[in-house]
Amino acid sequence: MTRIYYQGEKGSFSERAARQFFGPLIPATGLFKFADVFQAVGGDPGAFGVIPIENTLTGSIHQNYDLLLKYDLWITGEIKLRISFNYFARPGVSARDLKEIWSHPVALEQCQRFLAARPRVRVTPVYDTAGAAKILIRERRKDVGIIAGPQVAKLYNLRAVEKKIEDHPQNYTRFLVLGREKNFAAGPNAKTSLAFGVKNTPGILFRCLSVFALRNIDLVKLESRPIVGKPWEYLFYVDFHGCLVDEKYRNAVDSLNEVALYSKILGCYEEK
Amino acid sequence: MTRIYYQGEKGSFSERAARQFFGPLIPATGLFKFADVFQAVGGDPGAFGVIPIENTLTGSIHQNYDLLLKYDLWITGEIKLRISFNYFARPGVSARDLKEIWSHPVALEQCQRFLAARPRVRVTPVYDTAGAAKILIRERRKDVGIIAGPQVAKLYNLRAVEKKIEDHPQNYTRFLVLGREKNFAAGPNAKTSLAFGVKNTPGILFRCLSVFALRNIDLVKLESRPIVGKPWEYLFYVDFHGCLVDEKYRNAVDSLNEVALYSKILGCYEEK
Repeated sequence: MTRIYYQGEKGSFSERAARQFFGPLIPATGLFKFADVFQAVGGDPGAFGVIPIENTLTGSIHQNYDLLLKYDLWITGEIKLRISFNYFARPGVSARDLKEIWSHPVALEQCQRFLAARPRVRVTPVYDTAGAAKILIRERRKDVGIIAGPQVAKLYNLRAVEKKIEDHPQNYTRFLVLGREKNFAAGPNAKTSLAFGVKNTPGILFRCLSVFALRNIDLVKLESRPIVGKPWEYLFYVDFHGCLVDEKYRNAVDSLNEVALYSKILGCYEEK
Repeated sequence: MTRIYYQGEKGSFSERAARQFFGPLIPATGLFKFADVFQAVGGDPGAFGVIPIENTLTGSIHQNYDLLLKYDLWITGEIKLRISFNYFARPGVSARDLKEIWSHPVALEQCQRFLAARPRVRVTPVYDTAGAAKILIRERRKDVGIIAGPQVAKLYNLRAVEKKIEDHPQNYTRFLVLGREKNFAAGPNAKTSLAFGVKNTPGILFRCLSVFALRNIDLVKLESRPIVGKPWEYLFYVDFHGCLVDEKYRNAVDSLNEVALYSKILGCYEEK
């Protein structure tokens, strides 16, 4: 049976995204690092990975942009999840006794107002929101609160001290589904992701974007990342509406290849 | 006398950047968070702040991009620093006894190969590289190593267990100098930074970049950030060679304002 890999523990948002996409009964394995997910999917025929790629408050998860280029996987789908955080403690522990907060760094960044209101509480980043719950239970700490999604309450038997503590309710994370096989979505909601590198000359990014603009292709995301070993040079990642089974979009990519140094199609999938 | 604010402890790379820019004798104060630096400079007439903005291995420090927009400070200069990390322990402690590594998350990200070779050592992110040294000394830990710049050796009396452990030697961080007064650099190395927001329509980024391309203005950096409260909409930050005292560049910004929803000049300073 198909196996799904994600980063984090049972109860993480990545696991939730995986279950929402593939259904609640699919075997899903949580791994420690994002790179572990890419590695596992690459080595397990028919497996899929689910990784977060951007959040509407904190932006791109750039490690995953870099890993998309490093590994030869294919984006086969996406899913967007509403993200809300609660502040949890062990049952019977009073909020006053909490001297420390554990959570994932990106979760901490999405709850800055909550943290700013507690300047005396020590904040410690850990590898996963649900992982924070797991350690809290294992170490039976009465002085530590954690920040995680509401789903950890039942899983780890924790009490919500405070609910919906994210900085802004318009908080969503977009996850990508990764596989080994190169499928092309072809429906009206198809979306293509690709990366390209350019020679550093004036106007080069403008010329690259012109291949999309002159065909009225709708870019929905543009991200730049440094090129390792070439200080102050950048790679660009773009997402656009449309699919490469359609000639117009293939022509755009062919034109891009005339202007850019290189490009890599990362996937062509249904937008959700 | 002018006071400089930076994030981190004595011995951090931000402190080093500040001293390299302003000279070794200037009074410099390390603060806990980036936002504290913006706040301090805003409230202290004549003071300057020094913040990291991007690294050639790990990319933009996006919190500082967001803070540039939130606070009304002005970029008055920049400085680029070669970044090299050592692995430190307390004197007399053997490498074999180290069960845990502390450092700043971005430093940890720049030493991924080093960490991957030590899968059994627990990695704990802390607020600052030099801060890791400070805590190590205070808590007299014999089981903990830290990752920090070579400058912490003397400051905290630590022994380098291993040197130059960064993933790639082409490792530089670009720092910005922030002040309250709006100066305009006018020399041949002038650089301008600005941010702009757009309405989400096909081709809009292309049209915005055209105001620079048609004037042969050299964009050296483009960064996108999410707009809080407007999921899947983005702000763009650009750096270009040239200064707004020159009419050509003012015209470019005037044209940008016709196409973009809004824009904000962040500074006009000498490139280093």
